[in-house]
Amino acid sequence: MTKPVIRIGLIGHQFMGVAHSNAYRNAGMWYDLPAKIEMKCVCAKDSEENLRLFAERYGWKEIETDWKKLVARDDIDLISVATPGFLHKEMVLEAAENGKHILCEKPLANSYSDALEMLAAVQDKKIKHACGFSYRFTPATALAKKLIADGRLGQIYHVHARYAQDWMVDPTAPMVWRLKKELCGSGSLGDICSHSIDMSRFMTGGEIVSLVSQLKTLVKKRPVSSDPSSPMDDVTVDDVAQVLCEYDNGATGCFEATRFAGGRKNHNCIEINGSLGSLYWDFEDQNYLQFCDRSLSPEVQGFAKINATADFHPYGGGPWPQGHGIGYADTFVLEIAHFVSAIAQDTEYAPSFVDGVKCQQILDAIERSFNERQWIHI
Amino acid sequence: MTKPVIRIGLIGHQFMGVAHSNAYRNAGMWYDLPAKIEMKCVCAKDSEENLRLFAERYGWKEIETDWKKLVARDDIDLISVATPGFLHKEMVLEAAENGKHILCEKPLANSYSDALEMLAAVQDKKIKHACGFSYRFTPATALAKKLIADGRLGQIYHVHARYAQDWMVDPTAPMVWRLKKELCGSGSLGDICSHSIDMSRFMTGGEIVSLVSQLKTLVKKRPVSSDPSSPMDDVTVDDVAQVLCEYDNGATGCFEATRFAGGRKNHNCIEINGSLGSLYWDFEDQNYLQFCDRSLSPEVQGFAKINATADFHPYGGGPWPQGHGIGYADTFVLEIAHFVSAIAQDTEYAPSFVDGVKCQQILDAIERSFNERQWIHI
Amino acid sequence: MTKPVIRIGLIGHQFMGVAHSNAYRNAGMWYDLPAKIEMKCVCAKDSEENLRLFAERYGWKEIETDWKKLVARDDIDLISVATPGFLHKEMVLEAAENGKHILCEKPLANSYSDALEMLAAVQDKKIKHACGFSYRFTPATALAKKLIADGRLGQIYHVHARYAQDWMVDPTAPMVWRLKKELCGSGSLGDICSHSIDMSRFMTGGEIVSLVSQLKTLVKKRPVSSDPSSPMDDVTVDDVAQVLCEYDNGATGCFEATRFAGGRKNHNCIEINGSLGSLYWDFEDQNYLQFCDRSLSPEVQGFAKINATADFHPYGGGPWPQGHGIGYADTFVLEIAHFVSAIAQDTEYAPSFVDGVKCQQILDAIERSFNERQWIHI
Amino acid sequence: MTKPVIRIGLIGHQFMGVAHSNAYRNAGMWYDLPAKIEMKCVCAKDSEENLRLFAERYGWKEIETDWKKLVARDDIDLISVATPGFLHKEMVLEAAENGKHILCEKPLANSYSDALEMLAAVQDKKIKHACGFSYRFTPATALAKKLIADGRLGQIYHVHARYAQDWMVDPTAPMVWRLKKELCGSGSLGDICSHSIDMSRFMTGGEIVSLVSQLKTLVKKRPVSSDPSSPMDDVTVDDVAQVLCEYDNGATGCFEATRFAGGRKNHNCIEINGSLGSLYWDFEDQNYLQFCDRSLSPEVQGFAKINATADFHPYGGGPWPQGHGIGYADTFVLEIAHFVSAIAQDTEYAPSFVDGVKCQQILDAIERSFNERQWIHI
Repeated sequence: MTKPVIRIGLIGHQFMGVAHSNAYRNAGMWYDLPAKIEMKCVCAKDSEENLRLFAERYGWKEIETDWKKLVARDDIDLISVATPGFLHKEMVLEAAENGKHILCEKPLANSYSDALEMLAAVQDKKIKHACGFSYRFTPATALAKKLIADGRLGQIYHVHARYAQDWMVDPTAPMVWRLKKELCGSGSLGDICSHSIDMSRFMTGGEIVSLVSQLKTLVKKRPVSSDPSSPMDDVTVDDVAQVLCEYDNGATGCFEATRFAGGRKNHNCIEINGSLGSLYWDFEDQNYLQFCDRSLSPEVQGFAKINATADFHPYGGGPWPQGHGIGYADTFVLEIAHFVSAIAQDTEYAPSFVDGVKCQQILDAIERSFNERQWIHI
Repeated sequence: MTKPVIRIGLIGHQFMGVAHSNAYRNAGMWYDLPAKIEMKCVCAKDSEENLRLFAERYGWKEIETDWKKLVARDDIDLISVATPGFLHKEMVLEAAENGKHILCEKPLANSYSDALEMLAAVQDKKIKHACGFSYRFTPATALAKKLIADGRLGQIYHVHARYAQDWMVDPTAPMVWRLKKELCGSGSLGDICSHSIDMSRFMTGGEIVSLVSQLKTLVKKRPVSSDPSSPMDDVTVDDVAQVLCEYDNGATGCFEATRFAGGRKNHNCIEINGSLGSLYWDFEDQNYLQFCDRSLSPEVQGFAKINATADFHPYGGGPWPQGHGIGYADTFVLEIAHFVSAIAQDTEYAPSFVDGVKCQQILDAIERSFNERQWIHI
Repeated sequence: MTKPVIRIGLIGHQFMGVAHSNAYRNAGMWYDLPAKIEMKCVCAKDSEENLRLFAERYGWKEIETDWKKLVARDDIDLISVATPGFLHKEMVLEAAENGKHILCEKPLANSYSDALEMLAAVQDKKIKHACGFSYRFTPATALAKKLIADGRLGQIYHVHARYAQDWMVDPTAPMVWRLKKELCGSGSLGDICSHSIDMSRFMTGGEIVSLVSQLKTLVKKRPVSSDPSSPMDDVTVDDVAQVLCEYDNGATGCFEATRFAGGRKNHNCIEINGSLGSLYWDFEDQNYLQFCDRSLSPEVQGFAKINATADFHPYGGGPWPQGHGIGYADTFVLEIAHFVSAIAQDTEYAPSFVDGVKCQQILDAIERSFNERQWIHI
Repeated sequence: MTKPVIRIGLIGHQFMGVAHSNAYRNAGMWYDLPAKIEMKCVCAKDSEENLRLFAERYGWKEIETDWKKLVARDDIDLISVATPGFLHKEMVLEAAENGKHILCEKPLANSYSDALEMLAAVQDKKIKHACGFSYRFTPATALAKKLIADGRLGQIYHVHARYAQDWMVDPTAPMVWRLKKELCGSGSLGDICSHSIDMSRFMTGGEIVSLVSQLKTLVKKRPVSSDPSSPMDDVTVDDVAQVLCEYDNGATGCFEATRFAGGRKNHNCIEINGSLGSLYWDFEDQNYLQFCDRSLSPEVQGFAKINATADFHPYGGGPWPQGHGIGYADTFVLEIAHFVSAIAQDTEYAPSFVDGVKCQQILDAIERSFNERQWIHI
C-alpha cells in the first residue's frame, strides 16, 4: 500500500520561506505521515542563480520566478504562501481558483475584508487551508490548551500576554519592509500581536467581544540603508501595539506587542488565570509550561515548571526523549506534518483561514479603536 | 549633644498598623537616625484589653480609642494613619489642623478631590507629609530609579507593570472591607494598581498624560462571613484594573492589577524599556533588579540579575552584608527612617502627599475612563 | 497570669551579635511567646563608649566587657555566645558551670573533642542548649523537612548541596579572623559547609557514615589591611571544601563550600532526590521551596516553586500574609522564639549541642580525610 | 567549481543513529559546507524491512546488516559509529584499517586501554577522527569557551558540574543495555559524566591531575522486561558517579552524574568560577549562557542571562535570528557540519579521539579511585 504524494509549491524564500522549506523537508522524517511530501518547486523574485542555490540547499526540485505560473501548474497540490502580507490575497485567490490546498503565513491578510474574501474563496473550492500560526505547534502551548479543555483551570478570569522583541530598539536601524504599511498592513500588531491573539483563542477557546487599544510609532523616520547618512524614510506602522479587551466567557485580556524591548529577543509570553489554576508560557523557554494547580494541597501549591517534551505530551513532545527539547524550526515541522496529514486524510485542520479571519477581525478592530479613540464591539 | 525626640501616634492596628509599629520600633536600630523615636500612643477601634495587648507587644506606651483625642494631644509630633481609605481625609485634616507631621497610607484618599483637599491642608501648615508608597524603599527599586536617572536606559519607551495577587480567586471567599467602595474607594485599583502607578513615576520621573482603562468585577456577590451559607453581599469595587497610557516623555504604559491570579502571591512587577537598556523588578524576588545594559558588547548582553543588597546600593542595600536579603517588613523600616530623618533635619521628603495626589488623579481618571468608555487626558 | 521572664546576656557584638540582638528584641513582637525576654546585658571587647552606643541602639540594658563576669551573674538566665569559634569552648563551659541556658553560634567548636566536652558540660547541668544553625528556621527549609518526614520523597537517593559566596574572590582582599585557623578552626568548611551538613541532617534525618574530601587554599597570602602595600600574612584555612559521602540510609551526598564563586552572594542551596520526588532550596530565594512530586500525573510533573510563607506553612510562614516574604534577620527571630519557648516550657529543643557535636564530628572527619588522603568512616 | 562529495556509512539506528541521520541530512541545508554529504548506507542489526523503512525515512540510499562489509566498501568515506560502547573498538579499528574517516560516539571506548589502541589506529592512518561530545556544539557552551579564552574569567578557581536525569528513578523500570557493564562499560559515569568532564576540558582548557570518586548502584536488580513479574537481572554499572578533583591550573572540580534525580530531565549543567567572573550553563536552558562579569561596576554586577543565538555568537548562534533558539537535534547538525568541513579542507578537528582518550583516562581513574578507595594521580 503506497502513500499518496503531496506536491508542494512554495512562494517566498526569506525567513518564512526557509522555515517552510525545512519543515517540508523533514516532516516525514520526524513524524509518520499518511502521505509523502514532494518538494516540487520554489518560487521567488530573485536571480535564477540564487533561486537554484536555494532550491539545491533546501531540497526543491525546480524553481520558478512567476508565482502565477506556479499556482497554475497541474503538478502542484499545495501552495505555501510565505511572502509579505500585501501579496497574500492575490496569491491565495489565484491558488484557490486553481484548486490548490493552501498554507498562508500570518497575518492572513492586510485587512479584514481581504481576509474574508480569501476565506470565501477557499471555502467555495473545498480545498484545505491553513494559516501559519506556528506557535500552536509547540508541545507546551498545546499542553496548555489541553489542560484548559480538561477543565483544569476552571472558569477563565484573565489572559495576559506580551510579545516583546528588541530588533528595532536602535533608532538608526535601517528601514525594512516590515515598517511600511502598504507592504505589511501593520507593524508589531500584525507581525507579533497577531500570534498572541491567536494563542489566546487557541488556548482558551474564548473570543474577544470588545476592546480598546493604543498604537504608537516610537521612531518615525529611519535611514533607507544601513549607511546612517542615507536618506530617511517614514515608518508608517506601529512600533508598539497594546490592547485591553473582554472575552465572550467574561475573561479580561491584556496584550502588548513591541519590538522596542531591549534584551527581549522573542519574548512571546502568555499567562492565563482561572478559578482553579493558572498557566504561563514564554517562547524563550519554549519547552516548558508553568502550571499552578489550585486543586493541590495549598501546602505544595506553586507554579510547576513542566518540561512538556515527553512522548505522552501533545505532539509526542517532539521527536526526542523528554528533556531533549525542540527548537524554533521544529514547530513548523509539526505544523506541516499536521496540515499534510489533514490533506491526505481529508480531516479538519486548525488553524485554518477561519482562524486567520478571526484574528484579522481583531487586528482590524484594534486599529479602528485607536484611530477613533474608542471601544470597539466585535 | 542629644538627639531630638519625635513622638508618634499611630491610628490603626491591622495589617498596616503592624507594619508601621515594627518600623517605628526598629528604624533606630537598623539605621543611624538624627532623631529618637518615641512610640507614644496607638489608637484603634477595639477593646481596651486588645489594644493594651497590642501596645505591649509592639512597644507603644499608651493606648487611645478616640482618634480625635489622639491627634489633638500636645505630646504627639507625628501621626501615622493606617486605617481604611474612607477615614484618611478627616484624620489627616484634623491632624494637620493640630500641626502634626503626617504619614498617611496609600491610596491617599478615596477621591482626587479629597486628596487635593488633604494636600492643601498640610501645605498650609508647613508640616512634613508622607504617603505610604513603601515599595519605593526597596534597594532594588531605588537602584532602578538611580540607573534611569544616571541615563543608563536612555530614552524611555515602555512601562509594563503587573500587580497580581490571588487571595480573591475563590468565589466563596467572604466579604471584606476592601470589597466595599464606600470604605476603600476602589478595589485592586486603589489597593495595588496605585503602587504600580507610583512605582512608574518614582523610577522614570514620567507623568501619565492620557489613558484608557478597563475595570471589572469578576465575582459580584460574596458571603458576609466564612460560613458559606451566610447571606450574600454585593462586591462594589473592581476585581481587576487595566490601563493603557501615554507618558509626557512619549513612553507607553500598560498596567494590570488583579487579585484573581492563582499562584501569584504578591507579584508586583514592572519592566521598563529604554533606548539603552531595560530593567525588570518583581517583589516576589524583591532583593534583585534585572538590568539589560545595551551599552555592553552584544556578545554578552542579557538581563543581569543584580543582588541589590550591597552597602554601595541605595539605602545601603539594607542592614546586612550583600546577599543576606531583606523581607517585606524592612521596606517600612526604611520608609520610617527616611521620614523621621526628613522631619528632624527639615529636608524634602518623597513620596509626599504631592505624590499621593498625583497618584489619586490617575486613579480617578482610570475610573472615569471606564465609566465613560473613553480616553481621558490628564 | 504573668509570663516568666528570661534574662539574656549576649557575648559578641559583630555580625552575629547584631543578628542575636535583633532577634531578642523582636521575637516577642512577631510571635506569641510563653515568656518575656529581658535584654539584660551585652558583653564585648570594645570601648565602653562603643558598647554603650551598641546597647542603646539594640536595646540592651547594661554593658559588660569581661565575659567571665557576665556568665557568673545571678540575674542572667541565658547566655548567647556570638564570638569567633576559638572562644566558644571556655565561654560555654563557664556558662554551663554557672547553670545558664546557652545559645552558641555554629560551628559549635573548633574541634570535635572540644564539642564533645561542651556537650558533656551542658548535659551534666540539665540546662537548655542551642547551636545556631539558623537556616533551619526558614519556613521553606522546614517545609522541606516536613514533606520528607511525610514520606513525600520516598526513599532518599541523593543530597547535593552547595554553599557559595564571593567575598574572598579578590586576591587582594585583606586578612580577616575567618582566615586564621587558630581563631576559627577552619575556613569555608566550618563557616558555611557546616550549614549544609546540618541542613542535610535536618531535612532528611540521615547521618553521614563515610566520606572523602578535598580542601584547598586558593590564595595563600593576603595583606593584613586594606592598604595593598601592607605586609602579607598567611591564610591558614581552606578557601574551598568539597565532600563526597554516604548516609546511613544509603543515600549519596555531595557538598561544596566556597567563598570564591563570583556572583554568588549567599548561594546556600540544597537538592534532595528521592524515589517519589525531589526538593530544591536556595537561600538567595529563601521564601521558596521547589518540589517535584512524582506522584502527580506525569503530564503535569515538574518542579513547583512554592511560596512557603502562608500561615499553614511551618513557623506560620513568618509574620506576614503569604507572598510578603521574610528576610535574613527573620530566621534568627524564629530561632530565638523557639529556644526561649523551649526554656519556658521545658521542652526539647533542636538544633541543640547534640547537633553541634554531630556536625563537628563530620567537619573533623572532612579535615582528617584530606590530611590523610583517604576515606573516613564515622 | 564543484564541491567534493563525502559518502557516509552509519552504524547504528537507535537514539544516536537517529541524531546522526538528521545531522547528515540537514548539515548542508543549515550551513554552507565545503563538501556535499551523500548519505550512502545505514547499517544495523535489524530486519531488512525495518532497516529499509529507517533508510527511507531518514534519507539513506542503501542498507547493510553486516558492519564489516560496510566499513570495507570502497564507496564510503566516513564511518559514523553510533552503537553501544562495547562495539566501538572493533568497528573503529576495522574502519581505520580501511582508511575511513571516523566519527565515534562517546564514550570512545569501554576502557582507557581500548581508547588508546583506537587512537593509535587512527593516527597511524592519517584519517580524520571525531569523538561525539556533541554538547560542545552549542552556541552557549562555545561562547563560554570563548569568554574564558579571552581572559574574561581570569584565573580559574572552580569547576562545578552536575548532569542529572531521572529515567531510572522508578525501581521497577526494566533492564536496558545501558545498565550492563559488558555492554556499556559503566553507567551514569560513561553515559553522562563523560560529557561533563569533556565540557570542563573544552571550556577551561584545564586537565584533571588528581581525583577521588564515589560510584554507587542504588537499584541493584531490575526486571528484564516492562512486565513487573518478569525475572530480575543484575544492574552491573553505577547509578550515580561523583568526583572531586584538581586541575593542572590549580582549579578544583566537583562532578555528579545521576539518572535518579526526579524532575531533572537532561540537567547537564556546569558552573565555572574565576578571579574575574563566573559562568553557568544548563542544557535544560541550552540557548542561554549566564555570565557574571566582575569587571563591571559592582553596582550592576550579577549573572547576565545571555541568549547566545545571535549571528555574532559562536557557530553563528544557529540558523535563526537571535532568540529563535535551537533544539537538541541542532547540536549534532553543527557537529557534522564541522567534521565534514574539517575533512573537506583537511583542517584540525576537535573533539577528536585525542579528547576521547583524555576523557577515557579520567573515567578509568574514577572507577579505579572508587575500587581502591583512594586518590588517583593522572
